[in-house]
Amino acid sequence: MNDALKATLAPTLKSWIQSANDPASDFPIQNLPFGIFSDAVNAQPRAGVAIGDWIADLAVLEDARLIDARGTFHASRLNDFIALGRETWRGVRIALSALLAHGNATLRDDEALRRRALVPRSDATMHLPVEIPGYTDFYSSKEHATNVGSMFRDPKNALLPNWSELPVGYNGRASSVVVSGTPVRRPNGQIKLPNEERPIFSACRKLDIELEAGFIIGRGNALGEPIACEDAEAHIFGMVLLNDWSARDIQQWEYVPLGPFNSKGFATTISPWIVTLDALEPFRTATPAQDPQPLAYLRHEGDHAFDIELEVTLRPEGAHTPTTISRTNFKLMYWSMAQQLAHHTVGGCNTRVGDLMGSGTISGPTPDSCGSLLESTWNGQRPVKLEEGGERAFLQDGDEITLRGWCQGEGYRVGFGECAGQILPARG
Amino acid sequence: MNDALKATLAPTLKSWIQSANDPASDFPIQNLPFGIFSDAVNAQPRAGVAIGDWIADLAVLEDARLIDARGTFHASRLNDFIALGRETWRGVRIALSALLAHGNATLRDDEALRRRALVPRSDATMHLPVEIPGYTDFYSSKEHATNVGSMFRDPKNALLPNWSELPVGYNGRASSVVVSGTPVRRPNGQIKLPNEERPIFSACRKLDIELEAGFIIGRGNALGEPIACEDAEAHIFGMVLLNDWSARDIQQWEYVPLGPFNSKGFATTISPWIVTLDALEPFRTATPAQDPQPLAYLRHEGDHAFDIELEVTLRPEGAHTPTTISRTNFKLMYWSMAQQLAHHTVGGCNTRVGDLMGSGTISGPTPDSCGSLLESTWNGQRPVKLEEGGERAFLQDGDEITLRGWCQGEGYRVGFGECAGQILPARG
Repeated sequence: MNDALKATLAPTLKSWIQSANDPASDFPIQNLPFGIFSDAVNAQPRAGVAIGDWIADLAVLEDARLIDARGTFHASRLNDFIALGRETWRGVRIALSALLAHGNATLRDDEALRRRALVPRSDATMHLPVEIPGYTDFYSSKEHATNVGSMFRDPKNALLPNWSELPVGYNGRASSVVVSGTPVRRPNGQIKLPNEERPIFSACRKLDIELEAGFIIGRGNALGEPIACEDAEAHIFGMVLLNDWSARDIQQWEYVPLGPFNSKGFATTISPWIVTLDALEPFRTATPAQDPQPLAYLRHEGDHAFDIELEVTLRPEGAHTPTTISRTNFKLMYWSMAQQLAHHTVGGCNTRVGDLMGSGTISGPTPDSCGSLLESTWNGQRPVKLEEGGERAFLQDGDEITLRGWCQGEGYRVGFGECAGQILPARG
Repeated sequence: MNDALKATLAPTLKSWIQSANDPASDFPIQNLPFGIFSDAVNAQPRAGVAIGDWIADLAVLEDARLIDARGTFHASRLNDFIALGRETWRGVRIALSALLAHGNATLRDDEALRRRALVPRSDATMHLPVEIPGYTDFYSSKEHATNVGSMFRDPKNALLPNWSELPVGYNGRASSVVVSGTPVRRPNGQIKLPNEERPIFSACRKLDIELEAGFIIGRGNALGEPIACEDAEAHIFGMVLLNDWSARDIQQWEYVPLGPFNSKGFATTISPWIVTLDALEPFRTATPAQDPQPLAYLRHEGDHAFDIELEVTLRPEGAHTPTTISRTNFKLMYWSMAQQLAHHTVGGCNTRVGDLMGSGTISGPTPDSCGSLLESTWNGQRPVKLEEGGERAFLQDGDEITLRGWCQGEGYRVGFGECAGQILPARG
């Protein structure tokens, strides 16, 4: 990381956009996450960067020759920009940081340009930031795997033998990944009730969330050419929050022997802003100790976890006060993103720009740090109390779930914004 | 199906291209499968239709205004053409059938055009016919599921309870789907040997095939809007052969609880020609009896299986004579393609044009009708004998596997061509 890039991360850096200097803003000048947005003035989805309460329109800034990404900011997905490579991402970051920094007059004092280049976030519609060629979901929280194994298999052998040797993962359904704010329809499907001989066709009765973080591939690998663990982070563009909505009753019946399918394929929500790995650099921290020591292809030196605080709230339809149902941290994950990517490709599997990789449900050791209702309510047996009365074992129609995540710096935070979705009733 | 379309299926129909009238050709005038090819004269991949020993260059024919697909035949994948819809596919089929039919002079006697529009198949390089947004693999052969369940779980309860209630499926890795002829590198990965406490990192020692058929989505569905079983076939563009290469030792260690991942993600080979569902219509046949009767959303009237004869050969490097290691038929599949698609979408999951859905390994009741070496050799215990001496428990480096499939008509056959791949040694 060169000096110019390091300078964009300085905690003391301020912007001439005042809302970006609010310590509670997710989008200070140290963040500069990329997304795709449109607004009433210009309905064409295009690339933007969140800064305080505003979005910097990158297409406008590129047309004004203040940044350079070979015209890719006019596209309705970030893939072409991302494909330009890390030097380009970093060049844009450095240029934007300078342009938005306190004391820089170029954009600040050019009123005509500034009016076109800055769009209020509250006026914008966010779109899926990337076309996702492949979606992979891992299962890398030891607490989550232990909880699920205890509930559905054997509490004495909750963790299967392969779990501590490799980052277990599986292919998810990329077509149904949606951006935050998209309503989520409760799925219908086959459910096997305990006292019935045959399954019934029913709306899901155990609709759940999975609090996850996702990373977006910034540089793919060719078929047959694995990514080494030490090189893996250079292949990552950035991270998002991810809610892997899960129909537990459908899942329990369908998942043997080939894994979850319809229980997950109806929707997966991601947050609209991709926080770059560069912006997360100051929040790098130690990976949890791994015992046994992983096989050589899964080893890396140094710190490969990231200190990202996470929170889930549930707001019933019509309620004013959301209930916080989970607080945890991404740094608890047993397997790092680098290890996940090295494992994914070790047999030769290729990845592509825009591929989404989910961490798996992020759970801490206590019920209030679990990343799913399945765990925090122990399969519905211990419902969580809601702020305005009532309780939840699993999600009800109208419930709105919001994931939030942020890295806490000194006097600022690098945040992800929201990853939200409201439950619609099942099709009749 | 209207009269013009029916006429393209008449067994008596002949072409002025003599090689198309050979009863052993996979590509008679009744077939007209779509693919993407390039050749030495024109290195640009473009759409073509196989006819006897030739490929009709659809881009050239469209430029000559003999067929109409709004310019999509110049694209290097068929997705844009397919997205035009079934009426367009059928219109092109009817026009091509007329153009190539015995007695039609339009193309036959226009020597300059004919020379540009017909390319010898032996001179062409075939490409992946579609961009594949999603790849799903089912598990719909009762014999296969029973064999695998007997070997790895419990012979007395080989078939899991959900198997006869729903077409079990899972998401595969779309990025590593390759076209026939692409070499397949033996994967490295984690293997757990029976007498070792921990897994080792090794080249796969149990590399296997899976004989499957795949179908290609021709019309997608929106998120939240299931495809009814009765409507499902209208969403299918056509079929290919599919070899779902499998690393059995990697699979056995990794697959619990979320399903196969690295053991399948290194390569999946499909045949280059998509045989349309229209061309397969005369070979429609009864679906096997289903007991118990499926839930309502999985019911359809009439015949929904297809009589496709299948064959697998293995040719060791340097051998002249390939060994036939399997002969079976697609009509044996318990779950129909329509049922698979209805189930896939019943919870709201969306599909997209070009999505690939694999049938799962197609196995008959005897060892010589099994679709995998795992089954025919019973996990390597009963190796198959090779024509030129030697035997195989699993694949060796240099082995070439070829799948073939065809529907036998009276005096002609509607074939799929070859789905082939040769094994390269693992990376050192």
